[in-house]
Amino acid sequence: MNIGILGTGMVGTTIGAQLIRLGHTVMVGSRSTENEKAVAWVKSHGAAASLGTFADAATFGEMVFLCTKGDALLDILERVGSNRFAGKTVVDVTNPLDFSKGVPPSLFICNTSSLGEEVQKALPDSFVVKTLNIVNCEVMVNPAKYAPDGTMFLCGNDRDAKEKVRELLTRFGWRDILDLGDITGARGMEMMLPLWLRAWMVTKDVHVAFKAIRH
Amino acid sequence: MNIGILGTGMVGTTIGAQLIRLGHTVMVGSRSTENEKAVAWVKSHGAAASLGTFADAATFGEMVFLCTKGDALLDILERVGSNRFAGKTVVDVTNPLDFSKGVPPSLFICNTSSLGEEVQKALPDSFVVKTLNIVNCEVMVNPAKYAPDGTMFLCGNDRDAKEKVRELLTRFGWRDILDLGDITGARGMEMMLPLWLRAWMVTKDVHVAFKAIRH
Repeated sequence: MNIGILGTGMVGTTIGAQLIRLGHTVMVGSRSTENEKAVAWVKSHGAAASLGTFADAATFGEMVFLCTKGDALLDILERVGSNRFAGKTVVDVTNPLDFSKGVPPSLFICNTSSLGEEVQKALPDSFVVKTLNIVNCEVMVNPAKYAPDGTMFLCGNDRDAKEKVRELLTRFGWRDILDLGDITGARGMEMMLPLWLRAWMVTKDVHVAFKAIRH
Repeated sequence: MNIGILGTGMVGTTIGAQLIRLGHTVMVGSRSTENEKAVAWVKSHGAAASLGTFADAATFGEMVFLCTKGDALLDILERVGSNRFAGKTVVDVTNPLDFSKGVPPSLFICNTSSLGEEVQKALPDSFVVKTLNIVNCEVMVNPAKYAPDGTMFLCGNDRDAKEKVRELLTRFGWRDILDLGDITGARGMEMMLPLWLRAWMVTKDVHVAFKAIRH
């Protein structure tokens, strides 16, 4: 499958590399196609990897991953235009982190809305699925190594889109995937960040993950 | 040990019963000592149980548990007076749940503060420890049954107070206890509520608990 990834930072390239390993063709999208790190990453990942603008990557993907910084995301989506995402499954991996008051960050949106919901509003003709935002990107793509019993949550308004994303998460290695219902479930998923950040700070373990114990 | 519990609802009485089982003497505190359910609960729990006002329970306890509704808590503390809690370990089990806009509730304080921090401000001469708020009260006192591998978080500004609470949690059966540092760790712990509530809604399992997977 052709997959577009918005964002060429650690999250985007880590997910991109895993998608290529799984046989997909990936275009990562950046503000500028002359982004040196992104150019080098594409070169080192063979014919299945390419680089474009955010708009190019959105157009390219049958499925599109959102891996930009949270505070840049809505502006990027507006500039790219929702039409480029229309009819597609959009996987939102971002978090609404606000570093303006220092570290650890707070959330610039939470509680009565979420970045996931705002993304769904910005892309009304797309099927937004929130997932993967609750762990470090190395854990996202290799739970077998870091969290074999870990739980990955997902939520979104469209059943088929969630099924597609669930399949992909399974290929990543997630064995316990919990569907939290419609996109408002993103509130809880994004509000896990302060706990995750805190647990990371006190344990110095960036690969902290969570298991939701059910009966 | 003499332990005071503010709040005679399900959380307060469930914790109270477990503390009595562990050999402690418990006074539960209510708005009125004529609260019928509380009177009945005390009668059925023998000589180690008694009922008083919020102020009575605060005075009685060497350690005090806060188990009231979150939105009533700060007002109750103000009316009781911080002097009754002075020098004591205060275990804050509450959540800042706002039901005014329906169910599921949102949080009336979060992100850049927490109810735990506000309690510490209201009780400047006490040692507030936030814990247990992230699971149903049956899980709080019986993790061996519901979450033998579950993680319980705690946080607070005073090392000794946290050690006392950790000991009690261990007696409750928690085997994995993660100290999140100072009382600002309560932000993450309280912000877990939306995820917990959501997981409960979709799984119909009120005993959902969490394991923080570390390496």
